[in-house]
Amino acid sequence: MTDLTDLSRDHDLSALQRWLEENPTLHIAEGLSRLAPPARAVPFLLLSRDRALAVFEALDPVHQQEVLEGLRDDRFSDLVEGMDPDDRARLVGELPAKVATRLLAGLSDEERAKTAALLGYPEESAGRVMSPDYVSLRESMTVADALAKVRRDGVDAETVYALPVTDDERRLRGIVSLRQLVLSPPDRRISELMQRDVYCVHATDDREGAARLIQEADILVLPVLDSEDRLVGIITVDDAMEVIEAEETEDRALHGATQPLRRPYLAVSVLGLARSRAAWLLVLLVAAALTVNVMQHFSDEVEAVTTLALFIPLVIDTGGNAGSQASTVVTRALAVGELRFSDLPWVIWREARVGLLMGFLLAAVAYLRVTVVGSTGGAATGSTSLVALSTGATYAGAMLPMLARRVGVDPAVVSAPLITTLVDAIGLVTYFLVARAVFGL
Amino acid sequence: MTDLTDLSRDHDLSALQRWLEENPTLHIAEGLSRLAPPARAVPFLLLSRDRALAVFEALDPVHQQEVLEGLRDDRFSDLVEGMDPDDRARLVGELPAKVATRLLAGLSDEERAKTAALLGYPEESAGRVMSPDYVSLRESMTVADALAKVRRDGVDAETVYALPVTDDERRLRGIVSLRQLVLSPPDRRISELMQRDVYCVHATDDREGAARLIQEADILVLPVLDSEDRLVGIITVDDAMEVIEAEETEDRALHGATQPLRRPYLAVSVLGLARSRAAWLLVLLVAAALTVNVMQHFSDEVEAVTTLALFIPLVIDTGGNAGSQASTVVTRALAVGELRFSDLPWVIWREARVGLLMGFLLAAVAYLRVTVVGSTGGAATGSTSLVALSTGATYAGAMLPMLARRVGVDPAVVSAPLITTLVDAIGLVTYFLVARAVFGL
Repeated sequence: MTDLTDLSRDHDLSALQRWLEENPTLHIAEGLSRLAPPARAVPFLLLSRDRALAVFEALDPVHQQEVLEGLRDDRFSDLVEGMDPDDRARLVGELPAKVATRLLAGLSDEERAKTAALLGYPEESAGRVMSPDYVSLRESMTVADALAKVRRDGVDAETVYALPVTDDERRLRGIVSLRQLVLSPPDRRISELMQRDVYCVHATDDREGAARLIQEADILVLPVLDSEDRLVGIITVDDAMEVIEAEETEDRALHGATQPLRRPYLAVSVLGLARSRAAWLLVLLVAAALTVNVMQHFSDEVEAVTTLALFIPLVIDTGGNAGSQASTVVTRALAVGELRFSDLPWVIWREARVGLLMGFLLAAVAYLRVTVVGSTGGAATGSTSLVALSTGATYAGAMLPMLARRVGVDPAVVSAPLITTLVDAIGLVTYFLVARAVFGL
Repeated sequence: MTDLTDLSRDHDLSALQRWLEENPTLHIAEGLSRLAPPARAVPFLLLSRDRALAVFEALDPVHQQEVLEGLRDDRFSDLVEGMDPDDRARLVGELPAKVATRLLAGLSDEERAKTAALLGYPEESAGRVMSPDYVSLRESMTVADALAKVRRDGVDAETVYALPVTDDERRLRGIVSLRQLVLSPPDRRISELMQRDVYCVHATDDREGAARLIQEADILVLPVLDSEDRLVGIITVDDAMEVIEAEETEDRALHGATQPLRRPYLAVSVLGLARSRAAWLLVLLVAAALTVNVMQHFSDEVEAVTTLALFIPLVIDTGGNAGSQASTVVTRALAVGELRFSDLPWVIWREARVGLLMGFLLAAVAYLRVTVVGSTGGAATGSTSLVALSTGATYAGAMLPMLARRVGVDPAVVSAPLITTLVDAIGLVTYFLVARAVFGL
């Protein structure tokens, strides 16, 4: 199978044209994202207008930007004028000012006004991802009127499958689905058909909440209202999926102690990767420096019984793992809405018992292992520490994400790596205190 | 605000009825999931049939099961007969055999046959999550014919927004959207309107691939074919969102070294939580025992220079963090399809440089810190080890998930905790080898 990278290198335009005609949109978009940036614009000169737009829309904003930079004015305008306003707003938000200005200048007045309106909402708000292109109905319309309006205005709309019903002041009265319109007799009134209790959000609400609502309620369209409860846009299910993917990627990154990349992995430079990780790694290094203080404090114990040093890495690892398990589970339950802050006492009581159970299990296994290599004193110290450590780490791992959420910090930030590091210091203290008691130091 | 838990405790049925009438479906479902299991069936006796079904469908399978166990035969049949076949198949797959048999026995022959067909496909396959309730068209139909067919058969269909077009042998020829039907003149032929190049999957394909395809291609419906390429069902966008959420939850769990819970956090017992974590924690304990061997091997060095013990936790933590950063980023890029195995050399070359950069940064900071508390020998040892460790850990963290994917293991399994533990052992060896050289031991 030939692929786009080879074709592009060979400069054989007719073979390239054939390849572009034979392959589906997503495949072309994926091939483009693997080309060297200057080569990305070429296929757009060979694609028909419609397909060029479809491929362009399937690209990541960072690659869209590179394509635009390589295109002359008419092709450039075709693409940006054809984009949906919400996708265009997302792209403009990522562009350097110079390209953004050129983009906005190339738009018709109407499209520019729509894009500017979306850009006026805060980042990560529902307003940024909504589409202002919807078809709205009135309660007094008949099904026939409504279908006529859909036929007239539906071509440019983001979707026509769920149609908001509004009053004279653009206040939301309900929603009718295109399915209901098609299945109902033509003289039926919209007021009889529409669903009145509908979910909606405000434009300044968080986009993740809006997206999760679309997911939980299994709806195709979520109406977005302004501060005076007037309809200003709709969020569609494909926007919701994109938001959820972005939020998952962000949470994952924080969970692994890196800043989210905001662009595809291969499109980030080595320096960019290092930048996304350096701050976290340094914060964690400073936190880990706490362990040096702990070790200094107990240096007499280490000198007296050097076998104690043997188990330091084991104690640290195990505590970190237990804490990381609890924090992972609790962070996820918070993210998908299974837990609220008011569940905290209940969660703590559960996790403390889980931690204790796991601690005894670990201690039993470790005791056997340690008696082989070390003294029974060492075995007793290790096992007792593991029970305390597993309980404490599980407890901390469950509690910290919930407290973080309470004070408005993303629970993912305080999760795995930070908890691991904090638990390490506490684990060492526990270990040495137990050792003091066991060895009578 | 009153909530369902209080109302249920008070046994005030008329207040409960009022609450059920005033609250949206999702809110009721959430309230139900917080009730004690035996109380969960009561509200279903008070809800109208339609609303009861809507609330039931919004529940998690584990709560659906508890509701069913509390209901008598007629109410029970209403609910299970009303479910979509794909949701029903998912529920049956989770039920104990006795309840599953009772459920299947309560169904009409037609619905039972549909459910049985879905259950015949492997777990986590596209066939398990597809719906057999679709409306299919023929190429020879006009738009008017097609709309008539939608009106006739569309009531029971899972969706009518994207309609597969098939030939006499049920082979897929293309797809028409309801939007196109509504916007086109009635005498237009389906063959002129339909899109011929459509994405599709086979019933035995992995469900996650199918769901990600729906997300990437921004489509509402994905046709599912059998081994002879005949249409057997469709996967809709809401099924795709559910699959992606389940897969994300699974990946997250593995990343935090726990088994996925498969039910809501609060519905899992303390023993269940412990079971989901015990195996991983023991595996990691055994892996961490490797560090004890390393420490034993270098015990002479620790006895000779006890300050060496001071920095053991710091070295271990930092290596683990650097490895965890790289593995998080690479695992995510693999999951969303940004990276393939063939990118491995490129990824290794990038990450090795990132690791080296970070190593020098860490070493500079650590050198300052260590010269304050320790000797310059200690500082030199710590700093040199950090450079080597950061490079090695980053390298291992990036490479292992890619190798895992290559041999068919979920990259999340070898991610953060396992890499951290392996890196620890290597980190200790590096640290002591550097120390030997610096202190001439």
